[in-house]
Amino acid sequence: MRILIKDTAILRMVDQNEGILYGDIAIEDDKIVAIGSVPEGFAPDHVIDGKKQLAMPGLINAHTHMAMSLMRNYADDLPLMTWLSEKIWPIEAGLTPDDVYLGTMLSIAEMIRSGSTTFNDMYFEMEEVAKAVEISGVRANLSRGMIGNDTEGHEKLENSRAFHEAWNGKAEGRILVDVAPHAPYTCSDGYIKKAVELSKELNTQIHIHLSESLFEVNESLEKYGVTPIKKMEDLGVFEVKTNAAHCVHLHEEDFEILKKHGVSVLYNPSSNLKLGNGFAKISKMVEMGINVALGTDGSSSNNNINMFEEMHLCALVNKGLEADPTAIPAYKALEIATIGGAKALGIDSEVGTLEIGKKADLILIDLDKPHLIPQYDLVAMLVYSAAASDVKTVLCNGKVLMQDYEIKSFDEKLILVMADEAAHNLVKRTQK
Amino acid sequence: MRILIKDTAILRMVDQNEGILYGDIAIEDDKIVAIGSVPEGFAPDHVIDGKKQLAMPGLINAHTHMAMSLMRNYADDLPLMTWLSEKIWPIEAGLTPDDVYLGTMLSIAEMIRSGSTTFNDMYFEMEEVAKAVEISGVRANLSRGMIGNDTEGHEKLENSRAFHEAWNGKAEGRILVDVAPHAPYTCSDGYIKKAVELSKELNTQIHIHLSESLFEVNESLEKYGVTPIKKMEDLGVFEVKTNAAHCVHLHEEDFEILKKHGVSVLYNPSSNLKLGNGFAKISKMVEMGINVALGTDGSSSNNNINMFEEMHLCALVNKGLEADPTAIPAYKALEIATIGGAKALGIDSEVGTLEIGKKADLILIDLDKPHLIPQYDLVAMLVYSAAASDVKTVLCNGKVLMQDYEIKSFDEKLILVMADEAAHNLVKRTQK
Repeated sequence: MRILIKDTAILRMVDQNEGILYGDIAIEDDKIVAIGSVPEGFAPDHVIDGKKQLAMPGLINAHTHMAMSLMRNYADDLPLMTWLSEKIWPIEAGLTPDDVYLGTMLSIAEMIRSGSTTFNDMYFEMEEVAKAVEISGVRANLSRGMIGNDTEGHEKLENSRAFHEAWNGKAEGRILVDVAPHAPYTCSDGYIKKAVELSKELNTQIHIHLSESLFEVNESLEKYGVTPIKKMEDLGVFEVKTNAAHCVHLHEEDFEILKKHGVSVLYNPSSNLKLGNGFAKISKMVEMGINVALGTDGSSSNNNINMFEEMHLCALVNKGLEADPTAIPAYKALEIATIGGAKALGIDSEVGTLEIGKKADLILIDLDKPHLIPQYDLVAMLVYSAAASDVKTVLCNGKVLMQDYEIKSFDEKLILVMADEAAHNLVKRTQK
Repeated sequence: MRILIKDTAILRMVDQNEGILYGDIAIEDDKIVAIGSVPEGFAPDHVIDGKKQLAMPGLINAHTHMAMSLMRNYADDLPLMTWLSEKIWPIEAGLTPDDVYLGTMLSIAEMIRSGSTTFNDMYFEMEEVAKAVEISGVRANLSRGMIGNDTEGHEKLENSRAFHEAWNGKAEGRILVDVAPHAPYTCSDGYIKKAVELSKELNTQIHIHLSESLFEVNESLEKYGVTPIKKMEDLGVFEVKTNAAHCVHLHEEDFEILKKHGVSVLYNPSSNLKLGNGFAKISKMVEMGINVALGTDGSSSNNNINMFEEMHLCALVNKGLEADPTAIPAYKALEIATIGGAKALGIDSEVGTLEIGKKADLILIDLDKPHLIPQYDLVAMLVYSAAASDVKTVLCNGKVLMQDYEIKSFDEKLILVMADEAAHNLVKRTQK
């Protein structure tokens, strides 16, 4: 299959000084084979008109729980523990495998429409999530979120192993499986060590929540005398390539530990703000050379998976926080949302930029909108003016998932109706 | 003219406990005549299908400079004074009346598409802005931004007076004219007093920038020994109903002064963050009973006029700032963006809520989108999940300005082309 995208503006995200290219993009099977000018002999099976559009790498949602779309706007504006213990956990306990499948498909529809081509998911019933990825054509790193201690949670480790065996590298290579001990405050030290051993054995990355709330950090300091991040270092977690979600409340030493071990920080501005956890120090991380990726968290603490919103927050909130209008400039926010995510997920040799030989994971932004005119600076435009709804066409792994605002890889209308019904039945079942 | 909106969800914004109503809305000429059930004899000239939609009051953009759309993404990620003195002021100096008209029309297209029906504008060549309001069908409070001292700026006062005479109450009452001394740091004390006198004489409100940057507040303290807000109180500004944009850097006493005089705060979260000015203490203002309205500021410091983004920031950023997930709950953010704006602009008896007898300024939100499913709580949905692009239909003063995503009151495509051309010519002219 050969696809030609014609006459488009192109932001490769390879070099800030490159600026915007203009021309065509040629795709053969899953790969980009030409950018700018296309060899004369290239005979496309499918041509996409790229006029008045901008091509850029698909966004990478580096931390989410896709099936939580079924809990969107179910419980908001509540204190954290009330929200979790009275609302989210009871409804989560009632989720069936079918619910997880439909919730994930609902999120995949939203994700495609908002320009993400890859997500990093930690949840349960992950076989259902994997099926949704396979069918829909997107790319994902998937991990079974594990909570346990010395006596409980063994089956989750085994489930992770089985899931890895069944799905790692599957769906034309679009699925990678990681290992995910949920968090230091939900896993015993011994359990985390077992997770690390499993990760080493399977040669996976680790996906974990770290230092999300002040409460978590203070509790760790009281109980163990060290921060959660220092504790994870001591347990050997960072001997494995680790992706740490949140990292909002860091001590000075924590930054050094993350840097030293090449831990990627998965930044979730909407969720951190909405739950009242506060502001991660992203400018400092970027200055130190810590790799930062961007995520939405689940739709129950966001309440969407709109990466344009997260990019906007990333660029704006850090300027306010640093009292510096030059903090996290637009290009940096775009890097964090693309190649930063790819580096975190260990797939930066394949995606995250538009380059010849890389996978064709790319999106086309419709520039013919009042809020995107005039177009002096397309990089600033993407971060400060554009919205998820400006994403017109989406390709992943060389396949067209959406063209001219129409999802091509599955029946979106059917998923919307079925997911809506599943959500309402879920509430009925769990709210007796 | 009689319009019937059928079978829709309705959020009146009259009482938080009312919840969502379901039914029809009847409009006769410029007014709402029925909500919920419509009298049998009502014979509509035009019927709008409201199924899978939510009707709510049009959003009120309480502080903006609409024509600055022509400078969108022209200069970003720069220190404040570099941005102003090297980029914005030189290009602004080259704006012609036609540019102001086209820039304003471009912003009105964006405003309608993003669900605002009213804006509060401070700029120059205001006759052009007024013409754009008249033609496009939206509602606006307009004021000539005035900079001056004892020897300079007299003509701006006279221009304000003439503009008031020509346009106040015009365009079927959709235009109100206010008086706008730009800011304490750009106007002498004597000049501000003259503006206050003019405002009293014409019986207008005052629109002013106050305490936007730390630099401004510190300079005022050094030069005069008082904050800008105390200084304005001393000069008698607050004897007139005042709308104060920004109010980011307030001293304890400033809050009391604003409260005492019934000053409305026009909150611009994107702009305050983007320029590195920081975080206005909105939760505290709300708790004290200060009226807060929401604005986008101009498109050169935002870089759009998307009130859904501002609502989202208003609800999220203040939760992060207060470390409290219950701060500025969704309904409060909606109030700030609707009736709060109407109160600031002095038009709350006419707009800002959906009520029988009020003007028909309302928008319909398209609920049939993946990011808006499921729909447990439509109030939370509007603030945390929805986007400007979910606005499907817009009415102002009983006229349909957009239906099914198509702008009806002017030729949008033509405006986009002409504004784009004007912007490029403007840069060519001013960048010799």
